[in-house]
Amino acid sequence: MPELRKDPVTSRWVIISTERGKRPTDFSPEPERMKGGFCPFCPGNEDKTPPEVLAYRREGGGPNTPGWSLRVVPNKFPALRIEGDLNRQGDGIYDKMQGLGAHEVIIEAPGHKDTLADLPEARVEDLLWAFRDRILDLKKDQRFRYILIFKNHGEAAGATLEHTHCQLIATPIVPKQVQEEVDGAREYHNYKERCVYCDMVRQELAQTVRCVAENDDFVTIAPYAARFPFETWILPKNHDPTFEDAQKHEYVHLARILKEVLRRMNTVLGNPPYNLLLHNVPLRDGDGRQYHWHVELMPKLTRVAGFEWGSGFYINPTPPEDAARFLRDASL
Amino acid sequence: MPELRKDPVTSRWVIISTERGKRPTDFSPEPERMKGGFCPFCPGNEDKTPPEVLAYRREGGGPNTPGWSLRVVPNKFPALRIEGDLNRQGDGIYDKMQGLGAHEVIIEAPGHKDTLADLPEARVEDLLWAFRDRILDLKKDQRFRYILIFKNHGEAAGATLEHTHCQLIATPIVPKQVQEEVDGAREYHNYKERCVYCDMVRQELAQTVRCVAENDDFVTIAPYAARFPFETWILPKNHDPTFEDAQKHEYVHLARILKEVLRRMNTVLGNPPYNLLLHNVPLRDGDGRQYHWHVELMPKLTRVAGFEWGSGFYINPTPPEDAARFLRDASL
Repeated sequence: MPELRKDPVTSRWVIISTERGKRPTDFSPEPERMKGGFCPFCPGNEDKTPPEVLAYRREGGGPNTPGWSLRVVPNKFPALRIEGDLNRQGDGIYDKMQGLGAHEVIIEAPGHKDTLADLPEARVEDLLWAFRDRILDLKKDQRFRYILIFKNHGEAAGATLEHTHCQLIATPIVPKQVQEEVDGAREYHNYKERCVYCDMVRQELAQTVRCVAENDDFVTIAPYAARFPFETWILPKNHDPTFEDAQKHEYVHLARILKEVLRRMNTVLGNPPYNLLLHNVPLRDGDGRQYHWHVELMPKLTRVAGFEWGSGFYINPTPPEDAARFLRDASL
Repeated sequence: MPELRKDPVTSRWVIISTERGKRPTDFSPEPERMKGGFCPFCPGNEDKTPPEVLAYRREGGGPNTPGWSLRVVPNKFPALRIEGDLNRQGDGIYDKMQGLGAHEVIIEAPGHKDTLADLPEARVEDLLWAFRDRILDLKKDQRFRYILIFKNHGEAAGATLEHTHCQLIATPIVPKQVQEEVDGAREYHNYKERCVYCDMVRQELAQTVRCVAENDDFVTIAPYAARFPFETWILPKNHDPTFEDAQKHEYVHLARILKEVLRRMNTVLGNPPYNLLLHNVPLRDGDGRQYHWHVELMPKLTRVAGFEWGSGFYINPTPPEDAARFLRDASL
């Protein structure tokens, strides 16, 4: 059983994989799992994944058989386990609990060479519905406090399988950075009586210099204090803490702007590896009303600037105003 | 002039390099600056760096000429500039200031192929004295609130020049993660009336299971909630917030244990790329008395697990107890 352990100084929780613990020789040489070979996510190989928990099959067909356009399965090598109790306990000055949670894979499309940026808009919209369906299902489980949805695209961004997919991790803790955003939004609201993200949307739409794309429901910006070159955020124009409570037209418009931004990024940067994250309000968080869900998109362009890991201090070599201009001016 | 910009939600400050802003084509293909060619850090090339601010020359010789065993120079391409005022100002809801600071390079040894792990102990000790000398000089500048000292070893860890060196960045802000540690240590002390790091040292020495190395003044541990596989921390046994106030024998013992830990890491992991950070109390921080300076060492073994950037949530595939055992058992 994996463990969740808390740093006694910063209160940061970390997943420690005790079961499949990696030995020194497991790290070198770099395994080339991405290159060719068998793909467990391709149609016909449904029996090579755990049984599906969700699938979209417009043409019908039975569970765990081909015919799906999107498929959600538990991760075969989960970072957290769904069975058991949290079993919170101390260990001297330290705190730990069992590594309880859900870890699922959302296979975005059947085609092995498909990419999210090139899927039809309706398929991207389906992906958002799948996020919502899984969140609504998993949030019934009272043990979970957060559902983290993310995508690692490309080996340099952490993907270990080529076939286009997202991942979902449901956890009994709130990730540190999300909690900081929730706290920051609440403090700002206490002081200003306004949502900080709504203020950001207003100012960015007025100044336009950091805007990348816009439609009825969303604006995409290169954030003012971007940590990474060409980092962008997709912000809903209407205040809402909760992704899964969005209006239907918002999913339509999010699919459209997400696809557009990915295509702009691919055009300008030559199909870079990237990470995409959904930042949503923590589950059952009565204090989260001031939060404002959004999507963060970070192309992986620079080497991990080592000291940034250990200091939380970032150096961004591309001003967000420049990044926004390049992305805006890309011809699609 | 670079800018320091503050994220309005999380209050995280970021350096935005406005001057030498990178364009999309600057990121691809990966420049191979590490491989061969001219080295500005080698003896004889002293005129290819800005004039030195410190050098150790036991055999004598003039400034900016060969004969040094260690040399500190301003970074030729600094992330921050030393001249000017902070000029704090708002920009709508945002906050910024001028990117004022110092950015120096500490060339650890004259030999191009030398590595920190293989330097004689006396040379490693000299490096620590150089850290101290530069901190004492730069902390006179009232504009600075923190001096961050770090080392990126190997291209995958962010090094852009092969010749062994550390970097120093003096900033008008405290890096977020250091501030969190200072705050965490203070909160723990308010509650327990003990230093959290001292408690950690006590428990680790008693349990031994996460200990890697020990001498009179220091213990090296694989931390309980390590973010990365084979991450280690070198902790002084005596409580002290301030690196530059250490006793002489502590620098001797730190040099010894640092070299030992690097050699253990290199033996077990085959000379991995790594990052090393000195976590010191913020300058002139009356609130920092409960802090406990230390060194953090992180081999770069895994791909940057993308979602960790955006969530602050880490998955560590190697239990620290296993890592400590491998490191402890390495035959040097």
